[in-house]
Amino acid sequence: MNAVKPVKGLDWGTAAISNAQWAGALLRDVLLDAGYTEDTSRALHVHFEGLDQDLTGTKYGASISFQRAMNKQSEVLLAYEMNGEPLPKDHGFPLRVIVPGVVGARNVKWLGRVLVSAEESRSHWQQNDYKGFNPCVDWDTVDFKSAPAIQELPVQSAITEPKPGQMVTPDSDGKVTVKGYAWSGDGREIVRVDVSLDGGKTWNVAELYGEKQGEGHSWAWKLWKLEASLPTEDKEVTIICKAVDSSYNVQPDTVAPIWNLRGVLNNAWHRVHVSVHRD
Amino acid sequence: MNAVKPVKGLDWGTAAISNAQWAGALLRDVLLDAGYTEDTSRALHVHFEGLDQDLTGTKYGASISFQRAMNKQSEVLLAYEMNGEPLPKDHGFPLRVIVPGVVGARNVKWLGRVLVSAEESRSHWQQNDYKGFNPCVDWDTVDFKSAPAIQELPVQSAITEPKPGQMVTPDSDGKVTVKGYAWSGDGREIVRVDVSLDGGKTWNVAELYGEKQGEGHSWAWKLWKLEASLPTEDKEVTIICKAVDSSYNVQPDTVAPIWNLRGVLNNAWHRVHVSVHRD
Repeated sequence: MNAVKPVKGLDWGTAAISNAQWAGALLRDVLLDAGYTEDTSRALHVHFEGLDQDLTGTKYGASISFQRAMNKQSEVLLAYEMNGEPLPKDHGFPLRVIVPGVVGARNVKWLGRVLVSAEESRSHWQQNDYKGFNPCVDWDTVDFKSAPAIQELPVQSAITEPKPGQMVTPDSDGKVTVKGYAWSGDGREIVRVDVSLDGGKTWNVAELYGEKQGEGHSWAWKLWKLEASLPTEDKEVTIICKAVDSSYNVQPDTVAPIWNLRGVLNNAWHRVHVSVHRD
Repeated sequence: MNAVKPVKGLDWGTAAISNAQWAGALLRDVLLDAGYTEDTSRALHVHFEGLDQDLTGTKYGASISFQRAMNKQSEVLLAYEMNGEPLPKDHGFPLRVIVPGVVGARNVKWLGRVLVSAEESRSHWQQNDYKGFNPCVDWDTVDFKSAPAIQELPVQSAITEPKPGQMVTPDSDGKVTVKGYAWSGDGREIVRVDVSLDGGKTWNVAELYGEKQGEGHSWAWKLWKLEASLPTEDKEVTIICKAVDSSYNVQPDTVAPIWNLRGVLNNAWHRVHVSVHRD
């Protein structure tokens, strides 16, 4: 988004995603054990408070809806194992929250306290950060109360091979290998990834591979690859990808109309510019 | 989509949506009463068979996942009342299915039979229609098995006032009233509608109004309006709207990259071209 207009944010690029196997207690079971029931008429929220503090002594905090916490299909976890081992320190030892399909900011690490409240978390990260705004809202006009805290994320995809600026050499058939990942929020499955090598005029369907995940439980990314024919003459090519999820949600074409002051939620088509080496 | 390339479909325009109050039996309760339980290890589907037949005697049919049918939050209904009255004949008297947040094709009318199966419905409308494809797939190359049946729909919005081609007269402040609706699938709430009068360079936030709907239960459309300033000189203006849902899903900028042979799933920005009358 910085290419459109500078944002105040962290420069994650395409790398702010990973996958692991988590084990722990279902938050639902913990809440049931504490006496909460599924049917509640009030809109409640479940708060997570981390043990990590900033320089002013403020602990990290976030909340999700009680409805999500109690929904069996949401599989919200108080996790104590990562990939079959006790949680590493960096990943929140001894206990962290895993909210599948939801932005990382709600996956509180070094968990110190869980509480149920009629209000959302009052933390900075829930109230005044990680929200999306109209592209014409700037730091002088922003009203953080006007937008909901990001929870589920929109459909997204990225090209991981070749790398931006890389020199690619087509094989004898004039083809190069393009690879990447795609992902969508709330367990929505990736059903198709389209790849274009001519600026979006024509689109190839990439091959999806990896484990099949259940309906509404596609928590991990979907990997994709394509043997793509390069335009015969061009010395420079921009490779574009876009994904479709099981709600047939698609990615927007360009960044400017979804630009926002914090630089979050950029799910425009991913474009990678490469040079072509021909003998 | 016909403006990009002709499609084989019905010319619904922006009108294929409506809202009503439905009453009936929860499909979940009917299935529980019939002995089905929530926890099933197999991927099952619930079929609906209509009493209406085409000229060959084939009944209308469709299916949804067993998981959706059993999910309390999905509120799938076998409806016998519409707006407090018995179902009108046109709307499926005496019994029809209402699957909130899901494409109309699964909302079977004149319901004759419900059955649970390990397979999806074999009906034409489930297998060989109402599916989305890559824009380069045509009727010679289409493989209907390669795409999932449309269930949940993506985020969508439309301008209903002014009408396309209308002559608008700005008020003394140079403003015109723009109105419309927005909607998203699976009960995702509309959280923002942006409106542009300068081709997408700048965006105004529209006012959302109407009943507040619960999280994950926003089954009805959200109405919006805006008193919008017209560019001072222009005699012709294109008004554009785009919506954001609670997953921060957005609409794609243009139609061509989401074009598909059946002309379904067109949720690109809605554009209405009007003439401006000034004294």
